[in-house]
Amino acid sequence: MADFNVTPWNVEGKVDYEVLEKRFGIKPLDEQLLNRIKKHTKDLHFFLTRQIFLAHRELDWLLDQYEKGNKFYLYTGRAPSGGMTLGHLIPFMMTRWLQEKFGAEVYIQIPDEEKFLAKKDITDIDKLRPIIEDNVLDIIAIGFDPKKTKIFLDTDYAGVLYKQACRVAKRITFSTVKDAFGLTNEANIGWIFYTSMQAVPAFLKSVEEGHNVPCLIPLAVDQDVHFRVARDVIGKLGYYKPAILHCKFLPGLMGDSKMSSSVETDAIYLNDNPETVTKKVNKALTGQQATAELQKKHGGDPDKCMVCQYYKFLFEPDDKKLEKIFESERKGKILAGEHKADLAKRINRFLEEHRKKKEQARSKMDQFMLKS
Amino acid sequence: MADFNVTPWNVEGKVDYEVLEKRFGIKPLDEQLLNRIKKHTKDLHFFLTRQIFLAHRELDWLLDQYEKGNKFYLYTGRAPSGGMTLGHLIPFMMTRWLQEKFGAEVYIQIPDEEKFLAKKDITDIDKLRPIIEDNVLDIIAIGFDPKKTKIFLDTDYAGVLYKQACRVAKRITFSTVKDAFGLTNEANIGWIFYTSMQAVPAFLKSVEEGHNVPCLIPLAVDQDVHFRVARDVIGKLGYYKPAILHCKFLPGLMGDSKMSSSVETDAIYLNDNPETVTKKVNKALTGQQATAELQKKHGGDPDKCMVCQYYKFLFEPDDKKLEKIFESERKGKILAGEHKADLAKRINRFLEEHRKKKEQARSKMDQFMLKS
Repeated sequence: MADFNVTPWNVEGKVDYEVLEKRFGIKPLDEQLLNRIKKHTKDLHFFLTRQIFLAHRELDWLLDQYEKGNKFYLYTGRAPSGGMTLGHLIPFMMTRWLQEKFGAEVYIQIPDEEKFLAKKDITDIDKLRPIIEDNVLDIIAIGFDPKKTKIFLDTDYAGVLYKQACRVAKRITFSTVKDAFGLTNEANIGWIFYTSMQAVPAFLKSVEEGHNVPCLIPLAVDQDVHFRVARDVIGKLGYYKPAILHCKFLPGLMGDSKMSSSVETDAIYLNDNPETVTKKVNKALTGQQATAELQKKHGGDPDKCMVCQYYKFLFEPDDKKLEKIFESERKGKILAGEHKADLAKRINRFLEEHRKKKEQARSKMDQFMLKS
Repeated sequence: MADFNVTPWNVEGKVDYEVLEKRFGIKPLDEQLLNRIKKHTKDLHFFLTRQIFLAHRELDWLLDQYEKGNKFYLYTGRAPSGGMTLGHLIPFMMTRWLQEKFGAEVYIQIPDEEKFLAKKDITDIDKLRPIIEDNVLDIIAIGFDPKKTKIFLDTDYAGVLYKQACRVAKRITFSTVKDAFGLTNEANIGWIFYTSMQAVPAFLKSVEEGHNVPCLIPLAVDQDVHFRVARDVIGKLGYYKPAILHCKFLPGLMGDSKMSSSVETDAIYLNDNPETVTKKVNKALTGQQATAELQKKHGGDPDKCMVCQYYKFLFEPDDKKLEKIFESERKGKILAGEHKADLAKRINRFLEEHRKKKEQARSKMDQFMLKS
């Protein structure tokens, strides 16, 4: 029996993604669909070929639309509560790649009320401001096209979003939220309402344009529930239901299914300095044998080695090079110390580059941000 | 046993205001408080002396503050779903009078989402726009000071209101809303959230000024429940709890405790033409005897005569003249036909004047309206 639980606010246990797909009623991203994407994009991002994005809702329909000349826009988001981690980058990097390949516009929602409403320990919504600004800079640094990308905070942009959220909310009962999200009668009424705000950007462009525009939402699979509820409602309002592309969680360095912010060395933050990164990577779970002798003799399992997994998820785009790393692990050719030192260097190089772009992002902020 | 029910969305049965005060835990507006008000206002509006405004929360505290030099602002509102009736004028006329006498600023909320969320038959929020504009013109026509009065629609001003509403919402559970408003699990999540939006203007000025400003809310008694819930929360957020001044409902012409929009001749709309007004008043319940002979002999009861009540509530500010009208009714000196014809003329004169002011209000709208 698969003993795990995935909600937008909590991930418990070891996630079995096959079981999760069935539970959520989402479809695996199969070879045929990947080939259809490739027809338009020429190449495929390794997020797709490596099944880091592994499932979808109606991506086939979205491609039908695209092939009929009906261009789609992209929508993704980030609920700020602290600094962004490596794992948070994945849906944004996918979105940026899709923007480039399909020439698509991108809406990025920053639901700055969500964590405030859902988390007891966040008591002052205004204190999130510096965190929000830092998150937005991280997002811009990923390389979105300023001419085609709009970023908005829920509280700032509510003059546009709230009315549309009410239209969604009218069609969602508390019973539905209770069942879908597991909220109880003791949940606060802002948290209960919140899902309607998250639904809005999935049809906002259709409202703005006055005609239906297809929407694709790349997201981490824990966010699917919002759209399981909202897709029906959006359809009833007369708009296209958004298509969705689901990614796995970047595992925690300690082997958790999703990086946990309560396990100190589980997640690498984009603001971590090189020493911290090296220290965290040094503690990573590699699943190697108890001694160097045994490791050299028996090798390790790349699927259980977090160092290998971090290469796979983010740090080795070249499939051949990745296979070499996996092979070294399997055959015991590389020992944990060296393996970790290499990865730490790779991550630090990436973060150094990222922070340069982030510094440049500051002057571009105004081009991206919407206010109502 | 008092068999009636009062919620913001429905009034059933014959309202016993004394019972209601106890049920809601609000205090009668007594002689001593009226005298305290009079000390500052020199005279008293007949809404106060005639107990049309009959109860309060912490008005004594508000006057303490005022006497210490701590000026208050006023907050009231109107949830649009159709044209405004005579009854809707009362809290606004009281607010305007208080503005003049105390030199107070006024915040007027137009929660344009409320009825959309609460009423099944309002299916398109955008179709309310012409009604909203008409309501706003009616409100401006009452004579608010454009330099001291701000009017805002929830959906337009959500860029300011929504964040504050989230701060309120975080402290209200669904259980509380269920108990206080009688909402069920099948209520929609927008309706459940809505009370947090209604709470915001009661402390918004304190947020804006960066220090606590006392607030007084004149309202019809059915709205009290919103603040029964919100006052505690506002206190916990560190702001002054708003003081409240409650008015009775203008009875329906047919004798209902609150004018019912489902009984065609019960309510007079500000847009009713003179013929319609005359027709409606002609059908009013007067409680007179079965024949003219009997009426002349036994007289009638002014408390049960809706014609007398309309003079009392709105159309005869002069207490002596009102007593004469009541006396004529009691002594059978006036018969229903003449009684009604006089009132209809009076109402039509009032409405003609009101519509002139409404026409002038159009050019002033921009001075009053806020957007985020």
